[in-house]
Order: sequence, then C-alpha cells, then structure tokens
Amino acid sequence: MDFNLSRSFAENMDSNDPLASYRASFVITDPDLVYLDGNSLGRLTQTILERVQQVTEQEWGTDLIRAWNENWWEAPVRIGEKIARLVGAAPGQVIACDTVSVNLFKLASAALALRPDRIRIVTDMLNFPSDLYILQGLVHSLGGKHTILRIGSLDGDVTPDLDALAAAIDDSTALLTLSHVTFKSGYLYDMRAFTEMAHHHGALVIWDLSHSAGAVPVILDACNADFAIGCTYKYLNGGPGAPAFMYIRKELQEQVVSPICGWWGQNTPFAFGLDYLPAPGVTRFLTGSMPILSLLAMEAALDPLLEAGLERLRAKSLLLSEYLIYLSDTLLSPLGFHLGSPRTPERRGSHISLHHPEGYRINRALIEEMNVLPDFREPDNLRLGLTPLYTSFSEVWLGVDRIRQVVAGKLFEKYPVQRLTVT
Amino acid sequence: MDFNLSRSFAENMDSNDPLASYRASFVITDPDLVYLDGNSLGRLTQTILERVQQVTEQEWGTDLIRAWNENWWEAPVRIGEKIARLVGAAPGQVIACDTVSVNLFKLASAALALRPDRIRIVTDMLNFPSDLYILQGLVHSLGGKHTILRIGSLDGDVTPDLDALAAAIDDSTALLTLSHVTFKSGYLYDMRAFTEMAHHHGALVIWDLSHSAGAVPVILDACNADFAIGCTYKYLNGGPGAPAFMYIRKELQEQVVSPICGWWGQNTPFAFGLDYLPAPGVTRFLTGSMPILSLLAMEAALDPLLEAGLERLRAKSLLLSEYLIYLSDTLLSPLGFHLGSPRTPERRGSHISLHHPEGYRINRALIEEMNVLPDFREPDNLRLGLTPLYTSFSEVWLGVDRIRQVVAGKLFEKYPVQRLTVT
Repeated sequence: MDFNLSRSFAENMDSNDPLASYRASFVITDPDLVYLDGNSLGRLTQTILERVQQVTEQEWGTDLIRAWNENWWEAPVRIGEKIARLVGAAPGQVIACDTVSVNLFKLASAALALRPDRIRIVTDMLNFPSDLYILQGLVHSLGGKHTILRIGSLDGDVTPDLDALAAAIDDSTALLTLSHVTFKSGYLYDMRAFTEMAHHHGALVIWDLSHSAGAVPVILDACNADFAIGCTYKYLNGGPGAPAFMYIRKELQEQVVSPICGWWGQNTPFAFGLDYLPAPGVTRFLTGSMPILSLLAMEAALDPLLEAGLERLRAKSLLLSEYLIYLSDTLLSPLGFHLGSPRTPERRGSHISLHHPEGYRINRALIEEMNVLPDFREPDNLRLGLTPLYTSFSEVWLGVDRIRQVVAGKLFEKYPVQRLTVT
Repeated sequence: MDFNLSRSFAENMDSNDPLASYRASFVITDPDLVYLDGNSLGRLTQTILERVQQVTEQEWGTDLIRAWNENWWEAPVRIGEKIARLVGAAPGQVIACDTVSVNLFKLASAALALRPDRIRIVTDMLNFPSDLYILQGLVHSLGGKHTILRIGSLDGDVTPDLDALAAAIDDSTALLTLSHVTFKSGYLYDMRAFTEMAHHHGALVIWDLSHSAGAVPVILDACNADFAIGCTYKYLNGGPGAPAFMYIRKELQEQVVSPICGWWGQNTPFAFGLDYLPAPGVTRFLTGSMPILSLLAMEAALDPLLEAGLERLRAKSLLLSEYLIYLSDTLLSPLGFHLGSPRTPERRGSHISLHHPEGYRINRALIEEMNVLPDFREPDNLRLGLTPLYTSFSEVWLGVDRIRQVVAGKLFEKYPVQRLTVT
C-alpha cells in the first residue's frame, strides 16, 4: 500500500478499517493517550467491567457456594474451548489455568517423562527468559541429567539462527521449546517447519503462544504441535495476570501425567479418595482452585476476538505494522532509530521494536511528558505493541509523531540514564 | 456457659457479641439465608466489592500498565505480610501466590531436596486428599524413590491416630505434612508438639493452614515451623479461588530452591538475563504473573480480620461451636445425628461435622427448601462452618431448627440417594 505522512491519511485508514467499531467497546477514559503496550497488558472492555461486577456482587456475594455448580467449576474447560478456537485446536485439548510458568513446568516435565532416554532440551536465546528459568529449575529438580541448549546470541538478534537451531535438534533431543513470536524482535517462527523437524528426530515440541495468541493465526492441530502454553493478558485482553492456558494434542493426552496432581485434575474429585487417579484428557493437568474473578473477566475478553476473527485481526495487525515501519523508516531513522523487527510480514508478530541508543530515556520522556505508553526492553529497545481490536492508525501516527518530537527536541535529556524497576 | 434452647437466647448472645457489628459490613442480600459454608467460600464485604470495581475500572482500565509499578508488582509480598500477622509469622516469611496445590508442590520438593538421604514422607488419612495427590505426583516425578506413609483410617475418624503418627516419624523421615485443622472432623493438631517431634528426628514439617487461617490462632514462628501453605477463600474471605499463601521460616530461606523458577522469583527480573538467579528470601518461590483482580480482592478481605484480632475471632468461634454442639446434642441427636468433631475446644477448628445416615439427602433438602447452605462431605457428613466475623448466634439457632424440621418432618425423603457433582 502507498502510505503517506499526513495525519489525514491515518484518519482515512481508520474510516476504512472494518474493525474500527471495536475500539468503542473499550474503556478509553483518556482519548489523548497513545497506548502501544497492549502486547504487555491488553485494554479493558465495558463488557468485562460489567462481568466482573456481576461475578463479584451476584455470583460470589449472593449465589455464594452455589455458583461453583452453576458457573465456576467448568470454567477452565469452557474457557479453554474458546481459546482453542483462537489457536487452531479442535475441542478437548485446551484448558485455562495457572500461569504460563506453571503450565510450562507441567508440560516440560511430562514431555521429558515421555522421552526417558533422551537428555537434550533445545531452545533459543530469544525465548522469554522466564521460560528458560522454568527449564533450568525443572532440570535441577530432576537431578541435573538433562542439558539445555540455548541457540543463538543475545545481542540484538532480530532473527534466530535458524540453521544452528536445526542442527541442534538431534536424536538425543527430548524436547524443543520456543516462543512462537519472540518477545523482543517479534520474530514469528514457522511452527509447522520446526514441529516437523523435531518430530523427524523423535523429539516433542512445546510452543509458547504468549506473544501470538489473539494477534497471529495459530494452527496447532494443523502443525501437529504436541504442547502449547500461553498467557491471556496480552493480545487476548484478559486482564492483569489473568490465568494462562495450555494445549495437549489429543493423541498424547492419555500418555502424559502432570507432576502437579491437584484435585481439579483428579478423576472423581468429590469422592475424596486418597489416591490420585488422573481425569480424562487434558483436564488432568488442572491443579487447584482457579482465581474466579480473574478467570471470568478473561472469559469475557474472548468474545470480541472470536467475533472479529483471526483473519481480519491479522490483516489489520499487518497493515498497522507496515504503516508503523513506513513512518519509522521515514521519520525516525534519520533520528538514530533502527528497526529491530523482521521486515518480512510473514515472519513478524504484532509488535515492532525500535532500537535507539537513548531508548531508555526516550521511553521515560514519552511516558512522563507525551502521554505515550510504549514498552522498554533492555538494552535499547522501544517495543510498540499493535493490538488490532483497538489500536487505530491515528494512534500510530500520533505515537510516531510524539517519538519524533521527543528525539528531535531532545526532551529525553533531562532524564537520568538508569533502568526501570518494572515496565 | 449455660445455654438454653430459646431463640431469644441466641438474640441475646448476638446483642452481647463484641464482633456483631462486622456482620453489617458484609453483602447480605438474603437475610433469611443460613450460610454455614464460610469454611468453603467466605462471604463478600462491601469494601471488597468496591475495591474490585476500583482495580478493574481505574487501575486496569485507566492506569493500564502503569499500575504494575504503582500497586501490583509488590502485591504478593505486601499481602503476604498481612497474612503473616494472622499466622504468627514475623515479616519476610510469607508471600501470597499460586494455589495451595502448587505451593505444596514447590515446598515439598524443596524440603525433600534438603534431606536427600531420606526417603520417608509422613502424613495422615485425614489430610485433604489434594495434598496427598500432590505428594504422590511429586514422588512419581522424582522417580519413585520416596515412600508416603498415610497414618490412620478413613472411616469417620474424629481424632487422628496420634500414637501411630508419632511412631511413623523416624530418622528416615524427610518430611511430615499435615492439615493443621482436618477438613472433615475439624480436628486441630498441636502444631508445636508435632513440629518438635519431627525436628527431633531431623525431619522438616509443612503445615496446611487452609482450615485454620483466620479462625484459629496460628503461631508459626513460636512453633518453629519450617513451612506452611494455606488458602485464602475460606475463613480469610478472599473470594472464589483467590490466590493462596506460603511461609518459609527465615533460617531456611537461603537453603531452599523452588523447582518452579519463574521470573517473579528471579533476582533481577527486568534485566532479562538468561540464567535464573533466585531472589532473596521467600520471594524466590514466586512463579509468574499473579491474577491481580482476585489477588487484590483478597487483600481487601484481610483488613477486618486484622482489626478484629485473632483472640476475639477465636473466642467467638469457640462460643459459636459450643452453642452449636449444645443445640445439636439436645435437638438433633434424638433424630439420629452424632457429632463428628472433637468435643475438646482446644482440639477443634471452626467447623462442626454432624453425621447422619441420610446426610446427603438432608443436605439437599436444606439447600432446596430451607434456605440453608451447609456443606456435605462423603459419606454422611454434614459440615457446618462457623465464621466468627459474620456468623451470628441467631443464624446457628435457625440452622439447627431447620435441620430439625427437615429430619423430623422427613422432608429429605423426596430426594434421590445420589451424590453431588460439586459442593
């Protein structure tokens, strides 16, 4: 598409956006705010707000314990089925529960148990560090006989070292685990190719969908993926720290056992028998009572995504990111920025990384003075999330214009060179 | 105290109850409802309702990602410190996170790692089955070298077999783990005695406080307890499935490592380094992002408990249960009930179990026709929870009167003899 630099061009794009009407369903109390952090915390809808009120006041307050039977007990499975439709999974394979970390622990443990004679775990340095920590903790708790290979380098890689990764997957490999979309550059892995590669060597695969679910079409079944995990507070807009999800391919479900055998994953939990008997299918990976307020808020976030459909979401996400790259190339590159995300749309998720030596201070100035909320990642990485359900083209235009003002006007210079505690 | 059977006696007790005013702070939309299930799901306060609204609309909706810095990131530690004051723990030893099951898994794994040459785990048959499942799953995932001894019998035990338990703790014992208050009979263990017994043999102890926190004085530090876990949705009124808590005694904190090493338990999580370095102290047992709506709702539930104070809570709990036992002995025993809880107040938690051969159908009739919500546990166990912050003496009187009506009038006979899916 032929973009141009005018604000009216962005406004015209918004007028022609088939998903534009969804923005009005979100709670946007400050229309001037440029929110480019939906890849970290998705926005709240009015429907979610009302649902939280209802769950708290009516279901907890009035229905009390009766609500467990009526609506709560089945929630992890019911919500799992909704997420399944967003990640290309047929029914009976996805549950909503726990955190990404706990779910990765459960699945990695189960995967290693399925390959008892193999000692290698392959991943890459672009994976989210927490996933690497979980693998390290698991290996340590199992006595240290496994080796974790982390392929690639840390220094600003946009694209993983695919050849090195392919070479690392061998017949001693029990498990390959990768972020489907990497958290820094937004590189989008070819799920089918790497799953096939792992299977060719008899290895199992866990995909972390945290940065792809809800923004990028995911086709777990079609790729013959073994396991997947993902969070729901990014593009799924499920709310701060909302419960995560996990997927186990149908054929594997009766072969795997969770190391964390809670009563929600027990076959007959209300018989209160003393011996754990795994529930059928993927539900055996449930642990204990799930946080209902957070869980049901997240459920309410899924409906608009299902309605909009992933094809339209992906089409808008790509248009938004192509437009952002165009504006950045034209207006920000002369100011010292360079693109830290793939230029090939097919290999890109829904956020764009821009490197700048003063990235940290630019980020501070954007937050403190310009009413822009981007995301900053060490060492110099301004990460701009594009959430197709509510990010507008005008917002992207405004965001780039304000970044330009901060750098051209050296507004960042008053901020100390130091690191954030949290972003 | 000299109780009598009249309703006016109960009303008079309420008039003289120093905690009576707290009942008005709870959302009670149906004043006729007799709610005796606060040991399963505590009631909602108006303050919690308002806090949930604020967290959702203001913090998530408007503050967005900024709320992580302002209020959310520190929540597991901040809330842990509040819970610490309810369980007799000095600062720096309690965090609020995950579920009871996941926390038990982490701590049991860490405890076994501290005693690598010991293979015995001792527990009892009155422990909550989910805790037993967690131990089974852990032992399986570690290769099966450990043995779990479950002392006692299942058949309606009120009091554990204390002699058999003491005899089972030997020099091969790595870990003793018990429910401080057992979920069926409400037996209250002598925490100090059993902790000392375990330590005498070099074993470590994990106490599950799910049925004691908020209703029974717990003095973890004074008992020299090693580890504890507990849920917050029972007597702490934290809301359905609210995050759990865990305690690690100060002296053990630098010796233990969690098997589930998430980024919230990493020393410098925002450096995004690739190697897990445990955070100082108990916070190393945090995993991933916590469900903020459920977590902060739970925080709001703690203030009235801290204000009321455990001495007053315990005094009222004992008075409520003595009164209930008196009414039951007088009015319900002639109808075929027998007490399934200890008669000694010092050995009793805050719920009373009543056995009746028709317990299941009586429970159905109470729910369907009498506007009473008790709890039923297999095989014949009507479990009546007494929550000192909001259960009134009049409510106890009404509850017993309605149970009497159901049995005397044989109102239960129309219900089929079958089991619930969930209660």
